[in-house]
Amino acid sequence: MSKHIAGPEIERLIQLLARIPGLGPRSARRAALHLIKKKEAFLQPLSQAMQVAVDTVQACSFCGNIDTADPCMICKDERRDPATLIVVEDVSDLWALERAGSMRVCYHVLGGRLSPLDGVGPDDLNIQKLLDRVAAGIVEEVILAVNATIEGQTTAYYITDLLARFDVRVTRLAHGVPVGGELDYLDDGTLAIALQERA
Amino acid sequence: MSKHIAGPEIERLIQLLARIPGLGPRSARRAALHLIKKKEAFLQPLSQAMQVAVDTVQACSFCGNIDTADPCMICKDERRDPATLIVVEDVSDLWALERAGSMRVCYHVLGGRLSPLDGVGPDDLNIQKLLDRVAAGIVEEVILAVNATIEGQTTAYYITDLLARFDVRVTRLAHGVPVGGELDYLDDGTLAIALQERA
Repeated sequence: MSKHIAGPEIERLIQLLARIPGLGPRSARRAALHLIKKKEAFLQPLSQAMQVAVDTVQACSFCGNIDTADPCMICKDERRDPATLIVVEDVSDLWALERAGSMRVCYHVLGGRLSPLDGVGPDDLNIQKLLDRVAAGIVEEVILAVNATIEGQTTAYYITDLLARFDVRVTRLAHGVPVGGELDYLDDGTLAIALQERA
Repeated sequence: MSKHIAGPEIERLIQLLARIPGLGPRSARRAALHLIKKKEAFLQPLSQAMQVAVDTVQACSFCGNIDTADPCMICKDERRDPATLIVVEDVSDLWALERAGSMRVCYHVLGGRLSPLDGVGPDDLNIQKLLDRVAAGIVEEVILAVNATIEGQTTAYYITDLLARFDVRVTRLAHGVPVGGELDYLDDGTLAIALQERA
């Protein structure tokens, strides 16, 4: 939108919308118009839902998950097995695992991965609380569900080392062929591991 | 996100975000997490900008444009030529023409196109006000910048008929090869017109 064709309020809305991941400048304009046209039915509720999120959402002081309650609904859920702890980098990974939905376990969100290049060290991650939870003696297995990237794997090695002094089983997610994946399109590393780990 | 892993406030935010054009369920989750992580710096200002838009944005009672002022900034702009009126279907078309940015003219937003199948008739569009503006005698040329679709062209014919009784020149956007477009990928209709209208 060029200058002087609409008030700064609309301009600002478009600029902020354009910063949402997945929207660019063009789709932000389209989104702004769509929102404005459905002011009462859509823009108003969305604005309110955002304000509610601003006011209520917080990090769980136990696991690092985000929720409107602290402890979060997962930590409070008594039907979950506190003996199994899945360690993830980010809340989005926790959501993904919950969508996959097979295990009723507890989580620990690191809030990132070790990345010396980006200046992310162990103190920047939610690692000490993980050690505290394991030290409490209830946890029997820690599943390191970090990303299969170099930084994720480095983080996994680091945490495995730290957990060595506890009487706890440390496991990782299996590598292999994605369900529905075609071998022809798979990278060599994955294929080699899938072959090696055949069952 | 499956049930019982976060408060309903987060769930509702994701659901509303997923209704923004350009975002689906997956990107809405990603957007919600991104917004929540930048609560103070991003979510709060966006929520406020939306509320400001709810409170201030309205349709211009002259041209149908949306703005925070009525008459809108374009209708109020005295450097624009009121003798030339560009008729568009939607505010997004007005924005697109302003971005192209060559003419300092006035606009008239129809708010849609004639579409019997969707139950959109002449009374549903901002046509009477267009006739009133032309009847006032200042307008010398009406440029029908409707979409090059069947419904857009039907709307153009209908308005051309209505304007026949006024002393006003009615023109249309030129058809032809898009700038940067490759002939090989162009549809036959456009190519035929481009050849016919060669200059």
